[in-house]
Amino acid sequence: MSYSEKDCIFCKIIKGEIPCYKVYEDKDFIAFLDINPVNMGHTLVVPRKHFETVLDIEKWRFGEIMKLTKKLSQRIINATKADGFELCINNKKAAGQLVPHLHIHIMPRFKNDGLKFNWPTKKFSQAEMQKIANKIKNSL
Amino acid sequence: MSYSEKDCIFCKIIKGEIPCYKVYEDKDFIAFLDINPVNMGHTLVVPRKHFETVLDIEKWRFGEIMKLTKKLSQRIINATKADGFELCINNKKAAGQLVPHLHIHIMPRFKNDGLKFNWPTKKFSQAEMQKIANKIKNSL
Repeated sequence: MSYSEKDCIFCKIIKGEIPCYKVYEDKDFIAFLDINPVNMGHTLVVPRKHFETVLDIEKWRFGEIMKLTKKLSQRIINATKADGFELCINNKKAAGQLVPHLHIHIMPRFKNDGLKFNWPTKKFSQAEMQKIANKIKNSL
Repeated sequence: MSYSEKDCIFCKIIKGEIPCYKVYEDKDFIAFLDINPVNMGHTLVVPRKHFETVLDIEKWRFGEIMKLTKKLSQRIINATKADGFELCINNKKAAGQLVPHLHIHIMPRFKNDGLKFNWPTKKFSQAEMQKIANKIKNSL
């Protein structure tokens, strides 16, 4: 992959080379508003260290960033008076990851906010479901 | 809220009263296939104890379930050969939460899988963005 830390827009934000609407920072993590928000208060929680996806970050650091995400979610609910919120992490381009530096979306939601996160579902046979369940169970 | 643990479909799955395609379990957590999958291998990771949302679960337990989610994501990628995956948590009905028992979606994604998780964005002024950033920053 040609994309490197040097070209990473989030690394530049973290270094202060690109401005952002910062809502939180500590020695390991930073949080700022998504510049293309789905709703007011849409926030990204980001590790300062460059990791591409959830699979790349260390286990302990992922646990910590998710605990921080929980804390910030409460603050965002308080600040926006939202009726709910979604946490989403897109991993890899095929999953809609636009910036290849791990980030957790906190998206406040409001009753009748017009957002439609429609998840079109598929149908599989019982045999197919059992087969993949076994495969996951036994995959190491 | 009238919805109680007694009526909770996930609590019934956990107690073994309703069948599921189980992929993992330990003393605190269980994971099974989503019965309405967006793709083959779509899995839900669920705490055995009943919590409605991310705001309700204890901080330590949320850290643990997310670390487990990371581990299971790798297994699901191995088993499905997916090109990427999304992690999503819908909190409250306004955010599309259908079962009010906290669950983390692991959704394998494939290049050109036809799924469109379109997030329509909104535009706010710089002043509005700065105002909400400050509000979140200062909200406790």
